[in-house]
Amino acid sequence: MPALNPAYADIVELLVAVPEGDDAAVAAVRQRDAQLTKPPGSLGKLEELVEFLARWQHRAKPRLANPMVTIFAGNHGVTAQGVSSFPQEVTAQMVANFTNGGAAISQICALHEINLRVFELALELPTGDITREAALDDQMCAATIAYGMEAVAGKPDLICLGEMGIGNTTVAAAINAALYGGTGADWVGRGTGVDDAGLARKADAVDRALALHAGALDHPLSILARLGGREICAMLGALVAARHQKVPVIIDGYVATTAAAIAHAINPASINHCLFGHVSAETAHGKALAKMGQVGLLDLGLRLGEGSGAALAAVMAKTALHLHDNMATFDSAGVSGKAD
Amino acid sequence: MPALNPAYADIVELLVAVPEGDDAAVAAVRQRDAQLTKPPGSLGKLEELVEFLARWQHRAKPRLANPMVTIFAGNHGVTAQGVSSFPQEVTAQMVANFTNGGAAISQICALHEINLRVFELALELPTGDITREAALDDQMCAATIAYGMEAVAGKPDLICLGEMGIGNTTVAAAINAALYGGTGADWVGRGTGVDDAGLARKADAVDRALALHAGALDHPLSILARLGGREICAMLGALVAARHQKVPVIIDGYVATTAAAIAHAINPASINHCLFGHVSAETAHGKALAKMGQVGLLDLGLRLGEGSGAALAAVMAKTALHLHDNMATFDSAGVSGKAD
Repeated sequence: MPALNPAYADIVELLVAVPEGDDAAVAAVRQRDAQLTKPPGSLGKLEELVEFLARWQHRAKPRLANPMVTIFAGNHGVTAQGVSSFPQEVTAQMVANFTNGGAAISQICALHEINLRVFELALELPTGDITREAALDDQMCAATIAYGMEAVAGKPDLICLGEMGIGNTTVAAAINAALYGGTGADWVGRGTGVDDAGLARKADAVDRALALHAGALDHPLSILARLGGREICAMLGALVAARHQKVPVIIDGYVATTAAAIAHAINPASINHCLFGHVSAETAHGKALAKMGQVGLLDLGLRLGEGSGAALAAVMAKTALHLHDNMATFDSAGVSGKAD
Repeated sequence: MPALNPAYADIVELLVAVPEGDDAAVAAVRQRDAQLTKPPGSLGKLEELVEFLARWQHRAKPRLANPMVTIFAGNHGVTAQGVSSFPQEVTAQMVANFTNGGAAISQICALHEINLRVFELALELPTGDITREAALDDQMCAATIAYGMEAVAGKPDLICLGEMGIGNTTVAAAINAALYGGTGADWVGRGTGVDDAGLARKADAVDRALALHAGALDHPLSILARLGGREICAMLGALVAARHQKVPVIIDGYVATTAAAIAHAINPASINHCLFGHVSAETAHGKALAKMGQVGLLDLGLRLGEGSGAALAAVMAKTALHLHDNMATFDSAGVSGKAD
């Protein structure tokens, strides 16, 4: 096995030496939860969400004063292979739409008071067409991971990782095939809505990329550089930085999940602070989650990306914490407790 | 088969002669949806929620200016059989808690600007213990159905049906067993959290009730009177009135679903305006939904009742409509459309 490019030394170290969660904070949350006017456990995953926030914020009283959705946008040379039903310029057009409030994610965030930040990643410089060359060289891959770490700089108390990039479900399929085995057909889906011919072109592009780069896919970060995209690199950086800065993470759909998959392949414990907001209608997303022993919180048939499913999960987290903070206790409400 | 008690003539007529949904309103929603800046279909069930509102509000531009959660509360004589881990007085205590803002549903509604109304149903008069006598006589059952129809009087544009009543998961199990066959063990669950002995008492109570009332369970409304509860009667009334007054309905958990099951058993089309907000952790809920060919929108392990799961689904509906109303179109945002 060739030595890993030294450009990755920092990120590997951060992925390996991850801080543990805060069990004492979780215990404090459970103690309060047991006093609230409801049967124990009856709020199900809402209760788990509050524990999740406490554990990874390292706070006995978790807060969501500054929840943030981040969208990382990149362009992809593989669009030359006819893998999307939308032209590449839509990436930049949608970035403008996010900022102008016209996109779905803009309006989810507006309605539910979640901050939204968009990170454009050199849209004028698409990655290499992975059927012909590496997406990125190792230096650029490492630099983009480092750039993604900046997403946590605004001190969010929860960060949702989403993305935009015409062609990036093909890239995600290639990464999954490289990590988990299988062919293009096992990992591609209809993305923004390609027809059968488009689906076949996606599978074929993945297969050709895997063949071209065979022998250079020995490390998850090499897979990321060869087959990935700038937005996936940046999401990986944001995910790792969040862990070290005590920020819980909600991952969006199929493409965002590949950033977690790269981290997971290096150190499974490195994604323990991540929750998967939903399972996408993009066919292989559920399979990719299962490879990491994960499930999505919601299953609403979404396949939009741009952080939309993660943001809806964040709405559930906001609701869960609001209940935890504001419900009455058995004592304060004069409600009789459980008899047994 | 004995003739159905004439007290039920009105409700049967309302259940049989239900108005159709508004296909033209749905077509108008789809036309606008196709112009929004996202791949067609990519918002999945959020898109379906907007269509659902349009179809049953009979409005091409559906609205959610006055969404309402209703909680119907009743007491149950079957609590004498040791079927709950909470004492019967908790029903009234929780009604006060709903109103005072201390309950989970109070805080879900407060956070998401959903109106909350609580209907107390003669809490000082528990229904008959179904292991010894009928829960209600036919006159009272019919009168309580009629009372429930008043819930729609406030002109909500969406109504969530929830309930509170110590002992009512046992009652719900008895209704399901009478409607669909099986024994108590097939339909009971842990409710508010009974232990194994409590679970066995619940199953036994249902079996004894089924044996006692055998021969008098020939019509869904007879099942409701013999085995039901006031809150289930009232939810049935609200559900039917909603259909006739063009109000879409979101049904909460296991107990609320039995109100829909009674309607469905009389006329399956009578619940087409109902959406099931979630699948409860109460074991048999998923099975009861399947009997009607339904699934829950959310699956968050909730088993609280009080409309909590329906209200979370209403949050999704509010979000879906907000997106539909406020997203940019491809034209207005200058985003290129789908190529094929």
